[in-house]
Amino acid sequence: MSDERFYIGVDLGGTNIASAVVSAAGALSGKSSIPTPRGCNEIADAIARCCRMSMRAAGISCGDVVSVGVGVPGTVDGHGNVLFACNIDMRSFPLAEALSSRLGLPVTLDNDANCAAAGEYLAGCGRGCSSLLCLTIGTGIGGGFVSNGRIFRGFNGCAPEVGHMVIDFGGRRCACSRRGCFETLASASALERMTREYIAEQPDSICAAIAAGRGRVDGRTIFAAMDSGDAGARDVFRRYAEYLACGVTNLVNIFQPELVCLGGGISAQGERLLAPVRGIVEAEDYARVGARRTKIVCASLGNDAGITGAALMGRLNGGNT
Amino acid sequence: MSDERFYIGVDLGGTNIASAVVSAAGALSGKSSIPTPRGCNEIADAIARCCRMSMRAAGISCGDVVSVGVGVPGTVDGHGNVLFACNIDMRSFPLAEALSSRLGLPVTLDNDANCAAAGEYLAGCGRGCSSLLCLTIGTGIGGGFVSNGRIFRGFNGCAPEVGHMVIDFGGRRCACSRRGCFETLASASALERMTREYIAEQPDSICAAIAAGRGRVDGRTIFAAMDSGDAGARDVFRRYAEYLACGVTNLVNIFQPELVCLGGGISAQGERLLAPVRGIVEAEDYARVGARRTKIVCASLGNDAGITGAALMGRLNGGNT
Repeated sequence: MSDERFYIGVDLGGTNIASAVVSAAGALSGKSSIPTPRGCNEIADAIARCCRMSMRAAGISCGDVVSVGVGVPGTVDGHGNVLFACNIDMRSFPLAEALSSRLGLPVTLDNDANCAAAGEYLAGCGRGCSSLLCLTIGTGIGGGFVSNGRIFRGFNGCAPEVGHMVIDFGGRRCACSRRGCFETLASASALERMTREYIAEQPDSICAAIAAGRGRVDGRTIFAAMDSGDAGARDVFRRYAEYLACGVTNLVNIFQPELVCLGGGISAQGERLLAPVRGIVEAEDYARVGARRTKIVCASLGNDAGITGAALMGRLNGGNT
Repeated sequence: MSDERFYIGVDLGGTNIASAVVSAAGALSGKSSIPTPRGCNEIADAIARCCRMSMRAAGISCGDVVSVGVGVPGTVDGHGNVLFACNIDMRSFPLAEALSSRLGLPVTLDNDANCAAAGEYLAGCGRGCSSLLCLTIGTGIGGGFVSNGRIFRGFNGCAPEVGHMVIDFGGRRCACSRRGCFETLASASALERMTREYIAEQPDSICAAIAAGRGRVDGRTIFAAMDSGDAGARDVFRRYAEYLACGVTNLVNIFQPELVCLGGGISAQGERLLAPVRGIVEAEDYARVGARRTKIVCASLGNDAGITGAALMGRLNGGNT
């Protein structure tokens, strides 16, 4: 290897741990993945193992690495502790210290949505823009906001919790205890639920046949049904897009970011997802009379955004701002 | 006068223009007010006249004044232009230049909600806190956010437009064209509308008698009815507080500010307004498992917040962040 120094980024998920070696320019190598075990120390062991796999695959050693950054599916403080991450059953655990002692490297933690936003801002669709709101649409809806090179965390490190913005007062109960949260209506899980409800109502639909043929319903089912000419499926998707656009318009009005990027598996649908959302946002956002309008795009780094952002987070002037 | 230098703050409203001389420490003197005329140049004339009235009343002259700051009920750019302010029928007008040429002083503009937030942050309830979200509850709901000495404006200067956050999907039509906006449900106008609806449904209620006695319904009517033991009025207020708390909880989840302050005429109700809102927000906000919780208070400067913030805005490191 040359004198080049590298970073390691880790995406700690509820199901899998993924890591890679990341160059200062944002190039990934040595991507590795292992299942997430149960237990805090077991998770620290597994992350360390995954990082070593990445270094080996990239042909580097610890001496070539500046630091390790971990994206955590939950809240962290500014001192390397995970405060609460329900999907991995971790609460008040000093993960940075646990991992640092295993690897002999400096370790930083951040929320996974912040990492994805940082990754897109530094090396993805947000390069060169002044501010970026990155929404990760999956089981829930995560949000990360970067503005003028600073990541926004709120005074307690928990912002911006956009998934738990109520858009439907008195509506469906959310796991957070509120009713009608954005993520109960516009997450990938919500689209799956709407698809299942449609199939239950229309068991003879093309959509039902596709689901039966595949043996399951997922976030792609409704798009496959639309491709096969199922008009009812188009109605289901249109309703989903209205919910998604409602929350996105709220966030455009609140943050007025130069760019909103939509990430998560559903963003692979590209313009098919974007066009109806963009149509509604552009008709409704409050700054529509002005010359400077927010652009809405799909995330460009896919699942690599979190790893890239975790690795390079140190480049953003962070702190709880 | 001594060598002390002063600032002038102006609150440009749809009905009245108010101005005062403001010391560097945030003390007001020479408060003056005149009706807002129609026409852009007429408004510039009137503001200049109001500023001269304030200087005269405070016993100072232009030579004692560092700068003039104007809070505008609409959007402004960073170059002294009002982009759009529907209540005063002003669009794309170089108000700073127009006023500067009349007074021979440097003039800056900002959105009125930003000015109120800056005023409370610099000299009111937000002194010493790291971040403050200031909501002004009136005809609509305005928002201003200050964090670590910076005012948040979004990339186009229009943020944060919190009043047009939909909290009731498909609900009541808002003037902005969306449905179920926060301000259609939780502004002072919304409370007045709910009060009128209650009176129409219950013409024999104490509330109806109070309104008939006063010859009008305003934001205080429902509180007077509650004071007189009208149980139905309590239900109306409870429903209003639920809407207000819903939007506040959304914004706490999104911004995680150290402090939320509620301003506008209704904030004179103090704990009677705050207690039910706080109860809901504290039960529902996403960071409720953490140690660092947002505090919710009433604004302390009242109508002076906008004048103070407009005058002293230069102390906040602004820009479109």
